[in-house]
Amino acid sequence: MPAPGLLTSPVLSPYVIATSKVIKCKAAIAWEAGKPFSIEEVEVAPPKNHEIRVKIAATGVCHTDAHAVNPCFKAGLFPVILGHEGAGIVESTGPGVTKFKPGDKVIPLYMPQCGNCKFCLSPKTNLCEKISKIKTPISDQDLMPDGTSRFTCKGKQIYHFMGTSTFSEYTVVAETSLAKIDAASPLDKVCLIGCGFSTGYGAAINTAKVKPGSICVVFGLGGVGLSAVMGCKAAGASRILGIDINTNKFALAKELGATDCLNPRDFKKPIQEVIIEMTNGGVDFAIECIGNIDVMKAATECTSVGWGSCTLVGVPAVSSAGAKLSFLLYKFSLFNLVYYGLAAGWKSVECVPKLVTDYMAKKFNLDALVTYTLPFDKLNEAFDLMHEGKR
Amino acid sequence: MPAPGLLTSPVLSPYVIATSKVIKCKAAIAWEAGKPFSIEEVEVAPPKNHEIRVKIAATGVCHTDAHAVNPCFKAGLFPVILGHEGAGIVESTGPGVTKFKPGDKVIPLYMPQCGNCKFCLSPKTNLCEKISKIKTPISDQDLMPDGTSRFTCKGKQIYHFMGTSTFSEYTVVAETSLAKIDAASPLDKVCLIGCGFSTGYGAAINTAKVKPGSICVVFGLGGVGLSAVMGCKAAGASRILGIDINTNKFALAKELGATDCLNPRDFKKPIQEVIIEMTNGGVDFAIECIGNIDVMKAATECTSVGWGSCTLVGVPAVSSAGAKLSFLLYKFSLFNLVYYGLAAGWKSVECVPKLVTDYMAKKFNLDALVTYTLPFDKLNEAFDLMHEGKR
Ligand SMILES: [Zn+2]
Ligand SMILES: [Zn+2]
Ligand SMILES: [Zn+2]
Ligand SMILES: [Zn+2]
Repeated sequence: MPAPGLLTSPVLSPYVIATSKVIKCKAAIAWEAGKPFSIEEVEVAPPKNHEIRVKIAATGVCHTDAHAVNPCFKAGLFPVILGHEGAGIVESTGPGVTKFKPGDKVIPLYMPQCGNCKFCLSPKTNLCEKISKIKTPISDQDLMPDGTSRFTCKGKQIYHFMGTSTFSEYTVVAETSLAKIDAASPLDKVCLIGCGFSTGYGAAINTAKVKPGSICVVFGLGGVGLSAVMGCKAAGASRILGIDINTNKFALAKELGATDCLNPRDFKKPIQEVIIEMTNGGVDFAIECIGNIDVMKAATECTSVGWGSCTLVGVPAVSSAGAKLSFLLYKFSLFNLVYYGLAAGWKSVECVPKLVTDYMAKKFNLDALVTYTLPFDKLNEAFDLMHEGKR
Repeated sequence: MPAPGLLTSPVLSPYVIATSKVIKCKAAIAWEAGKPFSIEEVEVAPPKNHEIRVKIAATGVCHTDAHAVNPCFKAGLFPVILGHEGAGIVESTGPGVTKFKPGDKVIPLYMPQCGNCKFCLSPKTNLCEKISKIKTPISDQDLMPDGTSRFTCKGKQIYHFMGTSTFSEYTVVAETSLAKIDAASPLDKVCLIGCGFSTGYGAAINTAKVKPGSICVVFGLGGVGLSAVMGCKAAGASRILGIDINTNKFALAKELGATDCLNPRDFKKPIQEVIIEMTNGGVDFAIECIGNIDVMKAATECTSVGWGSCTLVGVPAVSSAGAKLSFLLYKFSLFNLVYYGLAAGWKSVECVPKLVTDYMAKKFNLDALVTYTLPFDKLNEAFDLMHEGKR
């Protein structure tokens, strides 16, 4: 899920206490909304049919996790183990699993790819029917496909989250929610391919379909926005404007491909008017990575009349999760929407390993997106850093 | 401009009193908003540089004309001669005109095609820079390109409308706002290619880009909606649902290509839910031809998760002309928008003659769209009929 305004991607380094069958280990439990995470000892049951138990090596934190415990949003299920931007190593496999074996490096996928549903069989989408409650993705995949949980803590069942639950030293995921990746890949970097990087990079490449020579603008230079900048560059954009009110982000944005960086507070007129003037009529592609209704408005307005497209990646913070988003439409633009990110068009099982390979071939830079690396039990501090980074 | 809910396309048969230089003839003057049209004798000046004077043979009426005199909408300029869906014969040409000669059959174009601007030079849009005030198209092209009018009545200057002003026995249009068509074409039918037909047909073919074998739904079975049905059929759709609360329209809709027609009032649940059930998950392409915010909502919601697209053709009656449209976005659909129609992707000068040729080759049916044919001085009755058809 996308991380609007994501600045920090703290990477956690958990340590582990494993047993032969049920594993006891540390996990971050969200007992209820609006409270800090509690690092607890949990029991992780062995994987059942077509399930895999994964030792998590690193996980990013994302605003989607924060949304899930934000009391202002639609109530999630509690207690729950969050986390959906992780990477790890297969510990054991359940019956029927043929594509994974212990020791494999893997990335859990919040967007499954079953390979058999009408969506997986279509080249037009990366959605998979295995995401059942498609209209309320944030509370989706709260349990394993058989309707039970693999987590308990203090005698209580703990819910899964997005089918991934990476805020645990061990997690269990469905076979269709896991990608096997290059054995040489650094897990504390490629974990970002699990969400933030793929969302921003894919928004530019898959959703907006940025064309060579085009003029782009990216609103919000957090992890998702910087990844969108990289996507625009990889797609051959001739000019990439980066917009943020935090000028500290500009140096990195320029390093990653932004040709101009603008702070809306430096101008008296609305930023969309500034952009229209700078680009002689508006941009070809606008990508909004914040989730702010006013910024979405600016993003739609700064596109060129006639062919400009606007891709909305950010989750609007003012709407409750799964609720409707009301906003304004302008002019004659074509609107491409990535609503809630949804892995931005990547067919997860097949594309995530390729993205890892591309990273290993230095086709893009993930290292620059990691602003902090913290030990696992500092998870609450990681969220504090993320929220500070948001502006 | 598109005619949401357009049912009737009365075709007027004017008669003519011509003079050698200034022509005195009948025209329908809108002296002020909210009043009936007044059939008056007007003076039509000779065409200036790169202008053509056209004897109008037939004109349709459209809701965009009604909007222009509706006091609830943004104030237009008065007095004015409306009309933008006409066909006629060149009477005389101004200096510099090389592509037209007296006697040519022509269709005036509210969307010009200058051929030289950055929009005309791009294959991505049919917009032309000659539409200068792009954000307020309804009050656009109120005068000739040199900033003056060719119409006077009772000593007063009369405004042009959309560069066409077809509610006059003679009108003057810019060279870039006129298409030369097949000399054998029936002007009382092909006039509909000037607006309503092209808008609906083009919404399906150019904007939605309906694919062979796809499932489509068209909301509103007026002239634009029926044209969209024909467009879906021409594009090879396997199933075309037609939605209207006026069941009288269903027989014709089916004749033109609709496979199922539904009246939302026949169902207890919202029509979008009915459509989703009927189509096992939603349609590939939804086209809204009414301009009603609730219907737009239904149109966005009835599209298939993953790849459904929604094309909005109707001009929302609740918003003032040129104002922003606020509406709701749902799910993960791709939104294609034809806002205010804008000739739905047709490069006007080059496409309108081809559409006429296609009509002559019986590739689609215009005759079925003409529900009434009235003499010119019954223009007010034509509008009454249109509004009744709208219900
Ligand atoms: Zn995320
Ligand atoms: Zn699937
Ligand atoms: Zn019209
Ligand atoms: Zn042009």
